[in-house]
Amino acid sequence: MLKHAEAIVTIQESAVRRGGRDARRTIRMAPKIDMLPTLKRGLPVVEAMDAGQVERIHQASLAILEEVGVVFRDPIALADWKRAGADVRGERVHLDRGLVMDLISTIPPDITYYARNPDKNVELGGPNSIFVPMTGAPYVRDLDDVRRLPTIEDLGTFHKLSHMSPALHSSAHHIVEPMDIVVAHRHLHITYSSMKHSDKIFMGMTTSSRNAEDVLDMCEILFGPDFLDTHAVTTGNCNGNSPLVWDQVMLGAMRAFCRRNQPVLCSPFVLGGANTPASTAAAVAQLNAEALSALAYTQVIRKGCPAIYGHYLSTVSMQSGAPMAGTPEISLMNFMIGQMARRYNVPWRTSNLLGGAKVFDAQAGYESAMTMMAVLLSGANYIWHSAGWNEAGMHCSMAKFVVDAEVCAMGYRMTQGIQWGDFDEALAAVRDVGPGGHYLGHPHTQANFERAFFIPKLFDNNSVEQWKAEGGKDMNQRALKQARQMLADYQEPALDQAKDEELRDYIARRSREIPAVEALNDEY
Amino acid sequence: MLKHAEAIVTIQESAVRRGGRDARRTIRMAPKIDMLPTLKRGLPVVEAMDAGQVERIHQASLAILEEVGVVFRDPIALADWKRAGADVRGERVHLDRGLVMDLISTIPPDITYYARNPDKNVELGGPNSIFVPMTGAPYVRDLDDVRRLPTIEDLGTFHKLSHMSPALHSSAHHIVEPMDIVVAHRHLHITYSSMKHSDKIFMGMTTSSRNAEDVLDMCEILFGPDFLDTHAVTTGNCNGNSPLVWDQVMLGAMRAFCRRNQPVLCSPFVLGGANTPASTAAAVAQLNAEALSALAYTQVIRKGCPAIYGHYLSTVSMQSGAPMAGTPEISLMNFMIGQMARRYNVPWRTSNLLGGAKVFDAQAGYESAMTMMAVLLSGANYIWHSAGWNEAGMHCSMAKFVVDAEVCAMGYRMTQGIQWGDFDEALAAVRDVGPGGHYLGHPHTQANFERAFFIPKLFDNNSVEQWKAEGGKDMNQRALKQARQMLADYQEPALDQAKDEELRDYIARRSREIPAVEALNDEY
Repeated sequence: MLKHAEAIVTIQESAVRRGGRDARRTIRMAPKIDMLPTLKRGLPVVEAMDAGQVERIHQASLAILEEVGVVFRDPIALADWKRAGADVRGERVHLDRGLVMDLISTIPPDITYYARNPDKNVELGGPNSIFVPMTGAPYVRDLDDVRRLPTIEDLGTFHKLSHMSPALHSSAHHIVEPMDIVVAHRHLHITYSSMKHSDKIFMGMTTSSRNAEDVLDMCEILFGPDFLDTHAVTTGNCNGNSPLVWDQVMLGAMRAFCRRNQPVLCSPFVLGGANTPASTAAAVAQLNAEALSALAYTQVIRKGCPAIYGHYLSTVSMQSGAPMAGTPEISLMNFMIGQMARRYNVPWRTSNLLGGAKVFDAQAGYESAMTMMAVLLSGANYIWHSAGWNEAGMHCSMAKFVVDAEVCAMGYRMTQGIQWGDFDEALAAVRDVGPGGHYLGHPHTQANFERAFFIPKLFDNNSVEQWKAEGGKDMNQRALKQARQMLADYQEPALDQAKDEELRDYIARRSREIPAVEALNDEY
Repeated sequence: MLKHAEAIVTIQESAVRRGGRDARRTIRMAPKIDMLPTLKRGLPVVEAMDAGQVERIHQASLAILEEVGVVFRDPIALADWKRAGADVRGERVHLDRGLVMDLISTIPPDITYYARNPDKNVELGGPNSIFVPMTGAPYVRDLDDVRRLPTIEDLGTFHKLSHMSPALHSSAHHIVEPMDIVVAHRHLHITYSSMKHSDKIFMGMTTSSRNAEDVLDMCEILFGPDFLDTHAVTTGNCNGNSPLVWDQVMLGAMRAFCRRNQPVLCSPFVLGGANTPASTAAAVAQLNAEALSALAYTQVIRKGCPAIYGHYLSTVSMQSGAPMAGTPEISLMNFMIGQMARRYNVPWRTSNLLGGAKVFDAQAGYESAMTMMAVLLSGANYIWHSAGWNEAGMHCSMAKFVVDAEVCAMGYRMTQGIQWGDFDEALAAVRDVGPGGHYLGHPHTQANFERAFFIPKLFDNNSVEQWKAEGGKDMNQRALKQARQMLADYQEPALDQAKDEELRDYIARRSREIPAVEALNDEY
């Protein structure tokens, strides 16, 4: 891990300049796990639509909202919408374009996220983006490359790896589902694991409004009372039931987050061709209508609260009905959705490094990288599922997690754009070296090589002979070794003891209060 | 292969509409290996530099050409440059900016390539791009996944796979080096294999001016006398010796191609940090100067002959000195070079789907896909090394070849951009289906699904249970099976018998004339 961290550090303009063997030894003795600061976009985005086409999608979405309407399967939301002036017919809410645009106009274009370690605060919106690990996997592919049900210890392992990965800005929440914890209490232990093993920002569970309130109570313990009302510290995700339905569980959680001024991702869930038309443009129009309806509702709940334009994007395989990743249409839809979110001046979320491979093979690499490149060039802000995703989200791979995290660092560097600072100095080297020379010995090269060219650690560029001499390991094997090394080097970021105890007490109390086995109801 | 071809065919707007079981059976009996037409860009490119930065690179390159100069290690070129008015000092040619810009102004912005099958003619330049397989591998990773020295039969196998791959527009030339043919005669057999096994366009060897003349003579046999003088049928690659050197072998081959009006790729060979400054911007300025010097020389050789702005791009690993692929700086340099080529209004070439993995693992997938996405969004026209490249070009993998070809088809589809043709019709489906419904049964979906969403064949999106039931094969294993199936289905495209005999006679005669073992000299 140390070498890895060192290389990453050099990407940061603020890198510690090494002063020789002594300085190097000092660093080695106290491994400094730097997090890259908020990614500030230096590359232009891909505008797949011209202004007229953006307007065409916009108008089509408004027409859907007005004429088709959106179902809110939730009596509180329906009552809220009536009060807000919407045309509510049964569960179907018809939203006038004026009302929608008026509501979303109060969504803040930017969010500052506060972490328990202030060095790890990040910005979101406009040119500012962050990488967040995958979440929600019901299986883990573990350090022995075995696919199995995950435990709370596995989740902790992923939170540790998140903490150690410079390009990841968040430890997320249930990267894997801790199956050894009863469902009813899981949100408590997931949240504690995020808070304990990392000092980065994290996400909040939205599995019910009650669970969301627990998460937010725990945030108040960690950050102090009243802090949440004026500071974003966590993020809740609310998935839509495309086409055009929001359900009670998601809406209840949304209300919990918005009332405490915490950002939610308003995420239509697109399975292109299954729950959208078989057309990228029309799928985006529908998705955009869905996102607008939820974004508007956040402002009904609390005017001015932060909210994020979200979505999960896939196209569906005709053979299996399974969601696919990295397909050309997903890339196009990402470009398009970025344009729509920018039109509305709201931060937006997409999914990164997705794939459907069952193992960490070439398929996983192609799909993940195609996804990431499109995502980065679409200008996404909240770049979720950035590490570990495989098998269409059915498992999180420890090997892929550490590679994805490095690939994010590569994408980070690309998205920063071209460095011009030393251009004249570097051109002087062309004159010094001249035709037929070489640059390796030139002082400019020696001073700038590491900063100028990213050298990934998990990508083997040695000769085949050298590679064989080192055991002939493929990327999966190398990554598993790297993950083990990172965990060996892991140091827990100190958590205030009083707060830690208060969190544990909260979990103990809520675990007594919430029955371990409950009847299924609308709230769960 | 059939299923593969069928799926790809649907990408083409001109796809045969299937009319039921009979029509399906007919297609199955006579597998139609369609080639996708020239890729017409529908997506905007990524402009990593603003206009001022493009001008800054341009001016820096002109200053290098004027003040540092370029070495042409070739007496004929030096004499040519003197006649053209350049300031020649020894081997170093100082090129005045007026002279350079004047010379390159006569390079045609577009090229039409003619194939022996006119259905496979393609266009190059502006929005028009083509995919060309990798070449030059000294090793093959074969159908048994064994890395070994390649034979002429292996080369034929790759030419067959090129022929069968819809997204590949060329069969290239020495995809692998046929080590069982003596070096002195190799160019003859390579060229014949390209011509015989595929009816797509192909490349021409530039291993010496004499070999280039042989290739061009064979082209005259295939296309008829005088055809070449007015039609581009092949492409020669001329690598530079960066920094700022062009050698005699490359310049001799360049003259052979230009004199017969055949396009050459003017390809500086960038190992970023080793033979360029440790700065992406300055590396591009040097590369641009090198490319301009060679492009200008093509017009000294023959005013108005087609020529292509080329390059090979890598950054160098500090650990091993090896070239890396898919790094952020390579992506940035591709974006930048595209902008420079467009400024000069000349077609340009880059390299696709590169990687340094030793096996066809996740590394190969990540690197290849990151490269491709940047290449496609940089607007490259001649997209070389698009299939098979692995181990930094040291081997061509049969498995990776067929996957890369499918990934190119995915990239092709993305680069075409958004389809708007059925937008209103698809929106009508949103009204029909309404909230909570599904689209799979809707007539619009059934009519448009295949066309709307790319379904890759070599990417497994089945459940893990289904995947296990099918043998639990990773992408490498599935691709090897696919390659075998394609070769079983291969049908040789008929070649005029008289021409075939004439080509064989030519090879026989030249094999007698050229000593199998020659002393090394400047011309070989």
